[in-house]
Amino acid sequence: MRPELVGKSCFVLLILILTCQSVLAYKNSYLRQRKPCKHFELYYHEVLFNGTDAANATSAKATNQTTLGNFKFGMLVVFDNPMTEDNNFLSHPVARAQGFYFYNKKDDYNAWYALTLVFNSTQHKGTINMMGADLMAEESRDLSVVGGTGDFFMTRGIATFQTDTFEGAKYFRLKIDVKLYECH
Amino acid sequence: MRPELVGKSCFVLLILILTCQSVLAYKNSYLRQRKPCKHFELYYHEVLFNGTDAANATSAKATNQTTLGNFKFGMLVVFDNPMTEDNNFLSHPVARAQGFYFYNKKDDYNAWYALTLVFNSTQHKGTINMMGADLMAEESRDLSVVGGTGDFFMTRGIATFQTDTFEGAKYFRLKIDVKLYECH
Amino acid sequence: MRPELVGKSCFVLLILILTCQSVLAYKNSYLRQRKPCKHFELYYHEVLFNGTDAANATSAKATNQTTLGNFKFGMLVVFDNPMTEDNNFLSHPVARAQGFYFYNKKDDYNAWYALTLVFNSTQHKGTINMMGADLMAEESRDLSVVGGTGDFFMTRGIATFQTDTFEGAKYFRLKIDVKLYECH
Repeated sequence: MRPELVGKSCFVLLILILTCQSVLAYKNSYLRQRKPCKHFELYYHEVLFNGTDAANATSAKATNQTTLGNFKFGMLVVFDNPMTEDNNFLSHPVARAQGFYFYNKKDDYNAWYALTLVFNSTQHKGTINMMGADLMAEESRDLSVVGGTGDFFMTRGIATFQTDTFEGAKYFRLKIDVKLYECH
Repeated sequence: MRPELVGKSCFVLLILILTCQSVLAYKNSYLRQRKPCKHFELYYHEVLFNGTDAANATSAKATNQTTLGNFKFGMLVVFDNPMTEDNNFLSHPVARAQGFYFYNKKDDYNAWYALTLVFNSTQHKGTINMMGADLMAEESRDLSVVGGTGDFFMTRGIATFQTDTFEGAKYFRLKIDVKLYECH
Repeated sequence: MRPELVGKSCFVLLILILTCQSVLAYKNSYLRQRKPCKHFELYYHEVLFNGTDAANATSAKATNQTTLGNFKFGMLVVFDNPMTEDNNFLSHPVARAQGFYFYNKKDDYNAWYALTLVFNSTQHKGTINMMGADLMAEESRDLSVVGGTGDFFMTRGIATFQTDTFEGAKYFRLKIDVKLYECH
C-alpha cells in the first residue's frame, strides 16, 4: 500500500469510530440527559371504605394497624382508585390505579406502594407498573416504573408522587407525575 | 483540500452515519418488532387451603375479604404453587410460582399479582420476577416481567395470563405465556 | 464509477460495519460479562415487634401465620429496618430498608420480599427497588433490582441475600450484596 493510502485509511477509520460513538451517544442521550420519551400527570383519588360507604369507596383496609407507634404501622390497604387528568374528583377517570400500600414507620407517616395504572380508553390501552417507598415526609417522592404492557410495552421510568390534598382517613388525593425514559 | 476530496469525504461520512444507524436499528429490532428472545408457556395450579387439606393445598388466605362489594375485595392469598408444562395437575412440576395476589374490585372479580417463577432443575436454574394487574374480566391479560436471575439474568418481558379452568374456591388453573424480550 | 473506486467503497463499507459492531459489542460488554457498574454490600437488621418492645422494634406482623404447615405460611411482616455497612447492629445506618415479606412454604421456611433501600445521606440520595423469592434453604439467593431513583436513577441488577445470623423470632440479620449492571 502506498503511504498516502495508509494515511487516508487511518483517517477514515478515525472518523468511523468517532461517528459510531456519537450516534451511540445520541441514542442514549435520552437516558443520560434524563429527558422522558413520554411524560404526563394524573391525579389519584382515594376514598377509603369506612364499613358503610360502599357506593363511594374504592379502597379498603386488608389488615389493621399494629400497636407499633401511632402512625398506622402495618395497616395494608388494597385499592382500585380512579385516576383523572385534573384534580376534580368528579372528572371522568382516564385510568384506574390498582394495587396496595401499607404504612411502615413507627414515628411518622410513611408508606410503601406497588400499583398498576390500567388504561382502557380509545386514547390508551395498556398498563404501567410501579413500586417503591412513598416517603410521605418529603414534598415529592420518586417511585420506579418497572414495566408496562400494551401502549406502554416494556416501558421504564420514574413516577413522582405529591400529596395534593389530605382530608383525614376519608379522602386523599395524590398528583402522580409519570416520566417514561424507555419507550418502544 | 481539493474539491474532489471534499465531495468524497462527505459521501463517506453520509454512508458512515447511515450504516451506524442501520446497525443500531437491527440491534433494537427485537424490541421494536416485539419478537421474544425466549418464549414458553406454563400452567399454574392453585389449591387454596380450606383449613383441613394441608396435604394438597399450596396457597392460603393471609387476610379475609372485606365487606366492600361481593367479590372478595381485600382478600390476600400467599402461594407456593406448582407450574407444569401441560395442563395436567399431576404432571411433574418444572417450576414453582411463589408470590401473592389480592382481589381488588368491588363490582367484579379482579386481582393484582406479584410472583417469582423459581426454576431449579437440570434444564433451568434461576428465577423470573413479574407483577401487575390481573384483569380477570378480560380473556387474556398482560403483566410485566421486571427481572430475572440465574439462567434468566436481568431479563424483562411480558407474562400473559389466561384462566384455563376455575373450579370455585377449591382449584383454579392459569395458562401463563412468558415472552422475554431482553435476554443476556 | 471506476472499478478501482467500487472496490475501495466496498472495503470502506466493510470496515464501517465491523467497526460499528465492535463499538456496540464493547458497549454491551458490561452486561454480557456480568461485571457490575456499581457493587456494594450492606447489612439488614430486623427486630420484630413482640408487642412491648416498640423502642427497639423496626418491623411488625401485619398478618398472623395460617395453619398450613408449621413454617409460618401466610405471615406477612412490614418493616422499616436499618441498613449498616458492617454487621454491627449499633453501627450508624447508611440506609433504611422499607418493604415487606411473607412466609410461603408449608414444609420449610421460605419467604418472598419486596423492598426499597432508601438512601438519604451526604454520600447518597435516592432509592433502589428490589423484589423476588428468598429461598431460605439456599445459602445465598438472588433477587431482582428492578429500578432506582436519584443517585440510582433507572438502575437494574441483582441483590444477593445471605442470612448472617438468626436469633429466633427476636432478631435476624441479612447480608445483602447489591450488584448493579445498568447505571445512568
